[in-house]
Amino acid sequence: MGPVRTGITATEALQIILDQARPLGAETVALPDAEGRVLCETVTSSRQLPPWDNSAMDGYALRVADARAAGAVLPVLFEVPAGDPGTRALPAGGAARIFTGAPLPPGADSVVRQEDTERRDDHVEIRIVPKPGDHVRRAGEDVEVGDRVLAPGARLTPAHVGMLTSLGRGFVSVHQRPRVAILSGGDELVEPDGDVGGGRIVSSNSWSIAAICREVGALPVYLGIAPDRPEEIERRLRAGLACDAIVTSAGVSVGDRDYARGVFEKLGCRLLFWGVDIKPGYPLAFGAFEGRGPLVFGLPGNPVSALVTFEEFVRPALLQMAGHARLFRPQIQATLGESLRKSPGRMHFVRVRLAREGGRVVARSTGNQSSGVLRSLCEAQGLLIFPADARELAAGDTATVQVLDPDFLAADGPGF
Amino acid sequence: MGPVRTGITATEALQIILDQARPLGAETVALPDAEGRVLCETVTSSRQLPPWDNSAMDGYALRVADARAAGAVLPVLFEVPAGDPGTRALPAGGAARIFTGAPLPPGADSVVRQEDTERRDDHVEIRIVPKPGDHVRRAGEDVEVGDRVLAPGARLTPAHVGMLTSLGRGFVSVHQRPRVAILSGGDELVEPDGDVGGGRIVSSNSWSIAAICREVGALPVYLGIAPDRPEEIERRLRAGLACDAIVTSAGVSVGDRDYARGVFEKLGCRLLFWGVDIKPGYPLAFGAFEGRGPLVFGLPGNPVSALVTFEEFVRPALLQMAGHARLFRPQIQATLGESLRKSPGRMHFVRVRLAREGGRVVARSTGNQSSGVLRSLCEAQGLLIFPADARELAAGDTATVQVLDPDFLAADGPGF
Repeated sequence: MGPVRTGITATEALQIILDQARPLGAETVALPDAEGRVLCETVTSSRQLPPWDNSAMDGYALRVADARAAGAVLPVLFEVPAGDPGTRALPAGGAARIFTGAPLPPGADSVVRQEDTERRDDHVEIRIVPKPGDHVRRAGEDVEVGDRVLAPGARLTPAHVGMLTSLGRGFVSVHQRPRVAILSGGDELVEPDGDVGGGRIVSSNSWSIAAICREVGALPVYLGIAPDRPEEIERRLRAGLACDAIVTSAGVSVGDRDYARGVFEKLGCRLLFWGVDIKPGYPLAFGAFEGRGPLVFGLPGNPVSALVTFEEFVRPALLQMAGHARLFRPQIQATLGESLRKSPGRMHFVRVRLAREGGRVVARSTGNQSSGVLRSLCEAQGLLIFPADARELAAGDTATVQVLDPDFLAADGPGF
Repeated sequence: MGPVRTGITATEALQIILDQARPLGAETVALPDAEGRVLCETVTSSRQLPPWDNSAMDGYALRVADARAAGAVLPVLFEVPAGDPGTRALPAGGAARIFTGAPLPPGADSVVRQEDTERRDDHVEIRIVPKPGDHVRRAGEDVEVGDRVLAPGARLTPAHVGMLTSLGRGFVSVHQRPRVAILSGGDELVEPDGDVGGGRIVSSNSWSIAAICREVGALPVYLGIAPDRPEEIERRLRAGLACDAIVTSAGVSVGDRDYARGVFEKLGCRLLFWGVDIKPGYPLAFGAFEGRGPLVFGLPGNPVSALVTFEEFVRPALLQMAGHARLFRPQIQATLGESLRKSPGRMHFVRVRLAREGGRVVARSTGNQSSGVLRSLCEAQGLLIFPADARELAAGDTATVQVLDPDFLAADGPGF
């Protein structure tokens, strides 16, 4: 065991974590499970899309040579519905009724929109002068055989799902979702349906951490509440060793009455740091196994500290493990709506509400910033970064805010 | 049947749709399913949080009257771990070893941090002058009994899940998720694993629409591919009547060879509009049932038209049905990186890539804007609004872009 780094900066802590958070391997999933996942393969097309020249409109297929002046009248020789095999050729001097998506009959070189024609029994009057290729979608205009359509690292969207489907792909190789073992510890903790008399409190962190895991696309594996006994902690942690990360909180973080560190070390986990110069969240610990094993995040027990440290340090790690390149929340430069003070030394994450006022975004504290006050995090739309060395941010000063609330970024109207 | 409105603006179409898209009723879900859902109830606390005065730090509980000058030495009479029932009173003149979260013993009025003490066997030297309330979290400082903690309409976050759990709530009432029946139609369509010879193509829209439904929190119910026969369309549509919305595409939209409109009318659906002055997506249709019944969206068959009209008209409706107040994608004012031209009359949604260049966001077309070219939507990070009346947007002009790609909004670094 080397010495454990302590009292490091948030930047150092994040760097140590991201250095360890390697992208997980591939798994093959059916397309309905692929949306939002990160592609692990190169998708090359074995097809032309569209597969044949086809009509972009309902109308009439013809040869432009047969309609050199407006008012040409042509016999309608046959009909080409969508789904037609498209093998019947159009003789010179004739037209074919054609529908959107239907294959252009061999011989035809243009489509005239229904609106630009007048049907008269078995003839059609062409009221415009068509040009070759009008309203024709050329075979392969979207994708040619051999095109490299998607590259590893692409985050799959609904449009990608449509594309993959069109290429006949029902399954695709993506990065695995991180499995995150969650363990709370402490004799005072009970589940939400438990008896809270006699000094007991609900173990809320496990459930909020499970929720944030799901939000980020990870799979929570809740190991339950460990009593304050090393053998109980060890038994539960062993159940989490096959996961990609272990997140502990409360009594299983490193403190005076904490047995967890010894258990982790016994299992082969090396503690890389304990204590980050931030508030809330100083007692954050991070460890890793030599060789194979989960990353280990020891979160502080306070509900706010646990969620803020997850947000700042665990979330980017899980995103990176899932193959994402973009790891961080949107940020804005906000104007302080009130002054904030602290002692220098630790960087503070201040829970703020955000308001658009006269072209600026104004940030105001959600109130009591005690790390026990979860309500102020419930009401927060962002975390304002109050730098370590600063003592005061005055009303009117500008600061960086990490935006937690997607509704704040949503537009008020459709934009048209 | 009244007359069907046609050739309406995007604004009119959206208004007609949102007028019909009423928030769905409540369902009670377990907390792990509540994240991201919209609350349907007022959550009032039946508890105080924290439940008792407790220590914010590891240290020593004492009476400030016993440490009026630095250097006071007090006997350590007992220990209060987290989880202690907190009933043992602290006699005057003594100190109690206390741990973070542990109840403050009756009689004590302050906690001195471990770092500010020196332990000597069964005594402790207090090296500072404590004030009443130092490092004490007061009972109820987060939540008092009877506090209205959450209001209907709140979008539940991981912090809310933590709060609900702390209040002993394992279940919560939220708006139902919209169930969306998806139907494609056309004799030419096959599933992704089907044979694409002889004029057949893969029905990709159903799968991309299912993906976008999931992305928005709705539940897709895929009704399959209906052949072009009214009785087959009717049989499948009847299977979707119990859903909250029906989304059709391709051969089941309203066109020359389209039987779907007649089938919908037979089932009691009133078509409210057909044809919106937009590109892609003109043939968008929308209907509703008198009284109970799903909203009916008839999307155009082109893959791009289907996804763009879903994005613009179905997505906000589904969000509103799920109880959300914020219905629209984030928007930015972007600078055109190239000039765009069109004829006046229809508003265009131009698929663009976005780049931050010198403090501005520059938008450039993803290439071929044909509505058959899904690849240009795969590569799009946003949709640029090219107003109906405009003929040209010159390079350097500013336009509104709806941002589709959350990765574009993500910050490059943590912000600290």
